[in-house]
Amino acid sequence: MIFLLQVLVNIGNHFDLKASVFQAPRRGIYSFSFHVVKVYNRQTIQVNLMHNEYPIISAFAGDQDVTREAASNGVLLHLEREDRLYLKLERGNLMGGWKYSTFSGFLVFPL
Amino acid sequence: MIFLLQVLVNIGNHFDLKASVFQAPRRGIYSFSFHVVKVYNRQTIQVNLMHNEYPIISAFAGDQDVTREAASNGVLLHLEREDRLYLKLERGNLMGGWKYSTFSGFLVFPL
Amino acid sequence: MIFLLQVLVNIGNHFDLKASVFQAPRRGIYSFSFHVVKVYNRQTIQVNLMHNEYPIISAFAGDQDVTREAASNGVLLHLEREDRLYLKLERGNLMGGWKYSTFSGFLVFPL
Repeated sequence: MIFLLQVLVNIGNHFDLKASVFQAPRRGIYSFSFHVVKVYNRQTIQVNLMHNEYPIISAFAGDQDVTREAASNGVLLHLEREDRLYLKLERGNLMGGWKYSTFSGFLVFPL
Repeated sequence: MIFLLQVLVNIGNHFDLKASVFQAPRRGIYSFSFHVVKVYNRQTIQVNLMHNEYPIISAFAGDQDVTREAASNGVLLHLEREDRLYLKLERGNLMGGWKYSTFSGFLVFPL
Repeated sequence: MIFLLQVLVNIGNHFDLKASVFQAPRRGIYSFSFHVVKVYNRQTIQVNLMHNEYPIISAFAGDQDVTREAASNGVLLHLEREDRLYLKLERGNLMGGWKYSTFSGFLVFPL
């Protein structure tokens, strides 16, 4: 049996990192991926995928010359029931918005 | 039970966006991801993932100084049977080719 | 039933491409994705996903002006039992390190 953890798509500009927390419904291996797009912003950003307050993986976007650039990464994780996963903007800001950003997770393999 | 929607890998330079349409074999949650690589092309491209003629997510590649750059994104989607998914080049062109581009989708969770 | 092929996360700087080989435990369709991050390195890198010594997909990172940039791609593959999958640095080097790189694979659909 496969459980879907959550589906989250950000079409508009209203993505709230802090409010977007996955909570694992059961023990298992989960797949997570994210693409955080910075818009009209020359700063370097660092986005961390957090697991219960600890950073697991990071992604970067630091190009000076493009209007939109994604900080992307993905990972498989062994989670316990009620473990929490969320994105944290570790460096930089998203003043220009982050339209088109996505954050997805699903259960691959229950344990 | 898990259904694989389709497997599509573009090793060569013969990827045809319009001809590459996923059609959902059944209702469920599907995972889609794409990496569209532009080659020797200074234009900014925007690639949309289309769901029955509606754009769901977008990705961008706009760097002026690199010979190959990918516009990447991914998403989980709730599809009905026979829903159609495909990539659309919303902006720019792929005159230099898009060798190494990939587009993948599979059923995560039947409903 | 779903089998997880392997979980591999590189938090530190000790990722060894050559030693990180997935071997398929059974016949089926597998999903693979990788994000290889080059750090403080102006060279263009090309990373290949290898399937039993043959390149399947490639990814590139070639920006001159950023301190960290990822070469990312992903694919669904039909594997036979004991097929081997690994990453190969086809071009460039990773002298500055590749902290934050990830390589993930799991069985989507047994055959």
